[in-house]
Amino acid sequence: MSPKTEPGPALQALTARADRALAATLPAEDQPPAELHRAMRYAVLGGGKRLRPLLVYAAGHALGHDGPELDAPACAVELIHAYSLVHDDLPAMDDDDLRRGRPTCHIVFGEAMAILAGDALQALAFEILAHDVHNGVDAARCVEMLRTLGRACGAEGMAGGQALDLAAVGRRLALDELERMHACKTGALIRASVRLGALAAGAGEEALAALDRYAAAVGLAFQVRDDILDVEGEAAVIGKTAGKDAAADKPTFPSILGLDASRERLAALTAEALDALAPFGARGGLLRELARYAAERAR
Amino acid sequence: MSPKTEPGPALQALTARADRALAATLPAEDQPPAELHRAMRYAVLGGGKRLRPLLVYAAGHALGHDGPELDAPACAVELIHAYSLVHDDLPAMDDDDLRRGRPTCHIVFGEAMAILAGDALQALAFEILAHDVHNGVDAARCVEMLRTLGRACGAEGMAGGQALDLAAVGRRLALDELERMHACKTGALIRASVRLGALAAGAGEEALAALDRYAAAVGLAFQVRDDILDVEGEAAVIGKTAGKDAAADKPTFPSILGLDASRERLAALTAEALDALAPFGARGGLLRELARYAAERAR
Repeated sequence: MSPKTEPGPALQALTARADRALAATLPAEDQPPAELHRAMRYAVLGGGKRLRPLLVYAAGHALGHDGPELDAPACAVELIHAYSLVHDDLPAMDDDDLRRGRPTCHIVFGEAMAILAGDALQALAFEILAHDVHNGVDAARCVEMLRTLGRACGAEGMAGGQALDLAAVGRRLALDELERMHACKTGALIRASVRLGALAAGAGEEALAALDRYAAAVGLAFQVRDDILDVEGEAAVIGKTAGKDAAADKPTFPSILGLDASRERLAALTAEALDALAPFGARGGLLRELARYAAERAR
Repeated sequence: MSPKTEPGPALQALTARADRALAATLPAEDQPPAELHRAMRYAVLGGGKRLRPLLVYAAGHALGHDGPELDAPACAVELIHAYSLVHDDLPAMDDDDLRRGRPTCHIVFGEAMAILAGDALQALAFEILAHDVHNGVDAARCVEMLRTLGRACGAEGMAGGQALDLAAVGRRLALDELERMHACKTGALIRASVRLGALAAGAGEEALAALDRYAAAVGLAFQVRDDILDVEGEAAVIGKTAGKDAAADKPTFPSILGLDASRERLAALTAEALDALAPFGARGGLLRELARYAAERAR
């Protein structure tokens, strides 16, 4: 098989579905507070791989669902991801001027508005997820989805991982510390994405457990690939400055393991993810494709 | 009656209950990521009037409830309030060094950690609210509570009000613009507090509507009193620099209406709030006391 550097037609169609759902969910630019709405839309609608919404849809697909009940969780996880990027890019955090080849939110709208846009995006994610009962999701399940998202975003999840990342700059981390940091910083939301899609699709405990094993492996694989791309990639392709993490003295998989062993780790994680999908047979096809894409993407 | 400058014994007991519930809900300082947990606890547990939790408990009381189902919403609204103060105090926002007589969160923990602590507090608010089904709150009602909180925090609520506030600095606002800004910036969360307490206590539509009329009036009264205190108050009592809003060229009720007309407006809002409580009889006692306290407090 040739490397899966871009998503295939089915995933591209779902990317477009996510883009449409996000555009419809975000508040309109001509309604007050207009500047805040503009900053929110700028932060979310500027492209991006939509990996997290794709995981929601693909997890639903693995359970035979593709209805509107998947759109709210798909949007919610992307709103959370977008808010985290806006805050991570702030001068007090990673101080990035460029994201996806465009000026970052605070460069365009100022720091204060970027902070608020991030805050409002987080709130919107929970609000729209709470609306999913109107798409036939059982209320108890909807509460479980909201709890899953809250946990994934907080001090034991994404925000906690970012705190560990800040504390790691300039330190030499052991491999298990690096993996723990990524398990929180990016892994928690990726696992939540798969779980939300599965919960919306009515998954039972056994399916949830298998999908969580898949998601944990894919989440880490995604990050290993990110670190490899940071070494190999060209700024023009990845949309941010290549070698930036190494230059910022951030610990990475290649800096700890070397490039070859990082590639081996990536292959092992992908194999683990694919193995976890065995119970789903052909219905796991989209999740399989996403696992390969996470590991082989060129940007 | 003498002015209600401090809460009475019943409200003081509920303040202590809120403090205990918050201390138990926040992540422990000796667990990683410890620095993030410390910043979160510092932001929340440093005193404060606990007006929003008190409104939750008092609304529950008006419906004959005082069980553990009120603790999760009481904590959730205070976590949201605390996160908003942390972000509002940042250098890019109001640039405040002092809050409740103590150094602000970013002064103690740095800007990056303050941003993350705020983010994590917001996520925790939703997470604990989603746990309220374990306290006997019906799942459909719990979803409604989560939707209420999400809406109150977002671009149409608190974050939107803060954006309107930023845009208002140095401008001369009309009275209705000022009221709209406050209705979002502080009013939305105060109304949500009352509604969450009422929803957790199983309120019907009629009670919810009456309580919302109360909450809208109290929310605005609280802000009018804040503006009056900013003119009259002493830094030692209010815990922040007196006259700061006027010095920052922020529009206030006294700057638009004058001090006497601001006091009249405050009295009218308090009368409106008390009138809305008529259907609750003696059970509305705590809400009545809070309305008077919001209007007459000395800090």
